[in-house]
Amino acid sequence: MRTIELMLQNHPNAETQRTEDYSSALEALSACEQVCSDCADACLGETAHLAILRRCIRINLDCAEVCATTARLLSRHTETASAIVHAQLHACVLACQICGDECEMHADIHNYCRICAETCRLCQKRCNYLLGMISASGVESDEEEDLTLP
Amino acid sequence: MRTIELMLQNHPNAETQRTEDYSSALEALSACEQVCSDCADACLGETAHLAILRRCIRINLDCAEVCATTARLLSRHTETASAIVHAQLHACVLACQICGDECEMHADIHNYCRICAETCRLCQKRCNYLLGMISASGVESDEEEDLTLP
Amino acid sequence: MRTIELMLQNHPNAETQRTEDYSSALEALSACEQVCSDCADACLGETAHLAILRRCIRINLDCAEVCATTARLLSRHTETASAIVHAQLHACVLACQICGDECEMHADIHNYCRICAETCRLCQKRCNYLLGMISASGVESDEEEDLTLP
Amino acid sequence: MRTIELMLQNHPNAETQRTEDYSSALEALSACEQVCSDCADACLGETAHLAILRRCIRINLDCAEVCATTARLLSRHTETASAIVHAQLHACVLACQICGDECEMHADIHNYCRICAETCRLCQKRCNYLLGMISASGVESDEEEDLTLP
Repeated sequence: MRTIELMLQNHPNAETQRTEDYSSALEALSACEQVCSDCADACLGETAHLAILRRCIRINLDCAEVCATTARLLSRHTETASAIVHAQLHACVLACQICGDECEMHADIHNYCRICAETCRLCQKRCNYLLGMISASGVESDEEEDLTLP
Repeated sequence: MRTIELMLQNHPNAETQRTEDYSSALEALSACEQVCSDCADACLGETAHLAILRRCIRINLDCAEVCATTARLLSRHTETASAIVHAQLHACVLACQICGDECEMHADIHNYCRICAETCRLCQKRCNYLLGMISASGVESDEEEDLTLP
Repeated sequence: MRTIELMLQNHPNAETQRTEDYSSALEALSACEQVCSDCADACLGETAHLAILRRCIRINLDCAEVCATTARLLSRHTETASAIVHAQLHACVLACQICGDECEMHADIHNYCRICAETCRLCQKRCNYLLGMISASGVESDEEEDLTLP
Repeated sequence: MRTIELMLQNHPNAETQRTEDYSSALEALSACEQVCSDCADACLGETAHLAILRRCIRINLDCAEVCATTARLLSRHTETASAIVHAQLHACVLACQICGDECEMHADIHNYCRICAETCRLCQKRCNYLLGMISASGVESDEEEDLTLP
């Protein structure tokens, strides 16, 4: 069993029936953060292809940040504001999708881009699953009621 | 003039007519990150009121993270994926609103909560303005077209 | 094999004979970041013991941040400034040691503190190993030569 | 007066006679984080000079991370473990010095590198001042006593 799953099972407030879903997402998020950060850096190290990989570098850096913050929020279960978690998960699913698409384009030439694309897909899938679960619970819809976003 | 505004004016890709809007948002975001982080810590230091401030601590920690990532994305202007920035800004506006509301509830008793509520409001306002600007430009709507979010 | 190890093996600049040491440290760092963040939050959720766990919350939050930044630096292998990595690893070994000691004190009562103490120890050990490796290579000592720190 | 200084003055545990030093450092740290992040991105946007700026990009990214974590630690004043803060400040002074030196080398050609070098110098100076202050207080030397770092 993952260490983080064991942590959530011993947490005074975590929903015990969902610790596996949360820890699966957390595992995918930290893998994605590290892999995206390393992919940006590997691209930066390509002497011959640097200009072509510019967009890949940028999106990888953003995706790493977004995954890091999403993981931080999901590791907490005391007094959660679901609307914030929901919106951050949404941003994360998008970041992983766009980053996966970008890396996919370089997957034939750069092995690290292929691995990164796969890591992004898995993270996108697990975060999307959690997002659906939180949406279904309906908690956040009440909180968002009086928000006036564009 | 703010240092970050000067940076954006010298950036090879930043839109020069919007550097003031971006640097205003960035200034508000880093103030909000620091103030939320300090507010969580000040609440943690309250011997007599700790249990009442539990939710305030949690939301402040989340809001600080969300602001930090949003600022990181907004400080970049090379090969921006607008859909990610848009979704992250949305999460940030929400986090600032909910954090501002929570801090407002303790503003009469704790001065730092009052200052934090005001800082969150300003950040929410400036991020919301940028969000409207990016929405109006319509760039991200194309990118989001084939996304299937819940 | 870990995904991050596979990434480093495909990186244009990573030292191929040390990818296992780096990926072991990176794995421990992201576990430690998540577990410390969750431990702080679990402590915050303890109604009866909140005041006693105050120091544990604070140190867990700091340790999570320090691990996150250390991991970000170690995930990169292009144009590394060894002196920065060395100093950051030093800060991380210290943070893990002090956080492990603090959590150990609550390990009999709170299971999550026990798990967190163990996670910190492992991270301390692996980062300390990398620190020794970088010190032995002697690269950073040249760079630090003309620094005048207190 | 800075918002963060006002926060520290209202904090239940912050040392009131040092709020100006802390808030000066925090202001410099968040400027440095943003400016380094933007400098990395501006370098990435340089079509003709990209390869020459590779090291500048890498070090800017690291310096931004290190500043972010240092600021997070310095924004807290409840139950501070001085040894962690001390080691993190040390890493930050080094990161700012090395990043400032690197940016200085491109300052004649790229205005943003010149601004970034200056911002790093100021941050280095203010963090170094705090480091001296904490060293002088001697708190951390006791805590570090039984550490066995290489």
